[in-house]
This record gives sequence, structure tokens and C-alpha cells, in this order.
Amino acid sequence: MANIYLALIHYPVVNKNGDVIASAVTNLDLHDIARAAKTYGVKQFFVVTPLVDQQELIRQIVGHWEKGHGASYNPYRGDALQLITVKESFDDVVEHLREKDVSIKTIATSAREKERRISCKEIRNQIYGGQTVLLVFGTAWGLSDDMLNKMDEILEPVKGCTEYNHLSVRSAVSIILDRLVNSR
Amino acid sequence: MANIYLALIHYPVVNKNGDVIASAVTNLDLHDIARAAKTYGVKQFFVVTPLVDQQELIRQIVGHWEKGHGASYNPYRGDALQLITVKESFDDVVEHLREKDVSIKTIATSAREKERRISCKEIRNQIYGGQTVLLVFGTAWGLSDDMLNKMDEILEPVKGCTEYNHLSVRSAVSIILDRLVNSR
Repeated sequence: MANIYLALIHYPVVNKNGDVIASAVTNLDLHDIARAAKTYGVKQFFVVTPLVDQQELIRQIVGHWEKGHGASYNPYRGDALQLITVKESFDDVVEHLREKDVSIKTIATSAREKERRISCKEIRNQIYGGQTVLLVFGTAWGLSDDMLNKMDEILEPVKGCTEYNHLSVRSAVSIILDRLVNSR
Repeated sequence: MANIYLALIHYPVVNKNGDVIASAVTNLDLHDIARAAKTYGVKQFFVVTPLVDQQELIRQIVGHWEKGHGASYNPYRGDALQLITVKESFDDVVEHLREKDVSIKTIATSAREKERRISCKEIRNQIYGGQTVLLVFGTAWGLSDDMLNKMDEILEPVKGCTEYNHLSVRSAVSIILDRLVNSR
């Protein structure tokens, strides 16, 4: 079983003009990413926002499927959503993992072109060699430059067979987990 | 460039009790699947529903991003959503492709266990050998048995490294396109 943690960042991310913003939580991000995380054996899925009302919203959504009406309607959702832990900041995520004595490598994903890049294959080899990784995904138009600069590695963008490079974060997470975990 | 067509079926699909139903169109299905389709060079993305109000809803969403306010806000969405063609039934999709003189193999995906299964690798080899394929995805709890029986092939379920087998259709489409198109 691979040692993979995920973080979905709502602040600091950029909008289409490059301004640093806090984005709103999207219900289907939580569902889709939690379901993919559960499928690929991810240990924990951190949802990061400094906004207290948004933190509360996440807890309500998770509670509905873990213990509320959703749990009897479709228990598989609760199984996935219970991977979610709400955190106020990225630094809190890192501290949380350090307290658990986990030595992690932080890896951001960004569709924007950057100099420093690591391939899925390299990360995959490191994971299978025993390295624990925290995959960090930005919402909106992606992680701020300050956030990207904090990371140990930046993953190559997910490319298909065209120049189009505008996948949803839900698709990007799914594809990257499949590339990192599955053998072919 | 691979010769791949997609169809997203809203009828006939099954609900959690196995009853055949017509499901409602989900806005983010259209966006996420169109964006993945555009990324992986899919030729056309058929959205299938017999419900006239739902067909109209799809056209309104596509129109908003192709020509409306959305087109100036984010032109990349229109680029992806213009792959969408609305059809009343699966048979209409097949007829549409036959009229274009396309010889297609229809391939369903289903998370439910079935006897007859083809692997992503086999399909991938056929595509690279020149075969045109129509990948057929069900919404709700998946395609009806009648639909599955109509297909030339049924693709193996997308597995991660766990027993959990409940990906969203948005994630499943993204992963399958990556497996079929990209070399590693």
C-alpha cells in the first residue's frame, strides 16, 4: 500500500488574473476526490481553508454522509468522505503529519509551466521505495507562487495528446493517483 | 491521434435498487468530461437523454460557454464543451456515426462484475491499430443490462489498489482516457 496523503488548497490560490484569493469549497470536489482517494489507498485527504464558515460547510457535508441520512442512503460515500480532515492552512497539514512522525515529501501539481519538474514515474519509484508523499492540489486557477516555492517537488503537468491543458482538479487528482499507484 | 468517441447515457440506466430510470443531467459531468475529452483528443462527446427539457438544459449550458458570458470569461471551457452533441438515444448516436461512415466498436464501462471483459491495454492496442471506438458511460448506478448486452465489448472496471470500487463517472472517464491514450 502506497504512503500517499492529499491536500486540496482553497487558500492561497490564484484567480484568472493571478490575484491571490481564497476560493469557495465545491461539494463535488470533496466527493470525487475522496472517492478517488479511497480507491487508490490514500491515507488522509486534507481540505484546507482559513474561512470558518467553509470549514463548517465541509464538516456538515462529511457528517451528512458519515452519520446523517446519506449514510443509510449510500454508505460507500461515508467510507470515502471519512478520509477528509479539515485544516486551516497548509502549514497546519505539515505540522499534523510531523506530529504523527511521518517524514513526508511535499509535491505540488500545477498546470502552469515551471522550471523544476518531476515526472509521475520518478515519484512513483520513490513511493514504491518507501517515501511518503503529500500531493498538494490547488483550486481555482491553481496554487500561488509562494505555495509552489514551498514544495519539495513540482509534478509535471498532466498532458493528454493535445495542447489543451485545462482539466478539472477532480480529473487531475484521479489521473495522477492512477499514474502513481497502478502498474501497467 | 486516437479515434475515440464518448457517450454519456442518462437513459436507460439503473438506480440503487436496479430499476431502470432516466437520470438528471449534472452540470459538472458536462464540464469535466468535455475538458478530459478535449485533453485526450476525443472526436465528439455525445450526451444522451430522451427528456426534452434536459436536452434544452444541455444546449443552454453549452451555449453559455460557447457564445454567452462564459465565452469571454473563460474561452477554454467553450473549446471543450463544443465537443458535445445532444442525442435522444444511444441508437441515434450509433446511427449518427454510421452516417459519417465511421466503423465503430462500442465499448461499455461498468463497475459491476460481468463475465465478458476486455482490458484497457487490449483496447489501447486496437485503437493504435486503427480501430475507432465509442466509449459508453452510464450515469446514476450505471448502464442497464439491456444496454450492456448491446455493446461489442465491456471494459474491465477501473481498480485502484483497494477493494473500493465507487469512482465518480467524471473520475472514471478521466482515468480510462489516460490509460487508453497515453503511453508510459
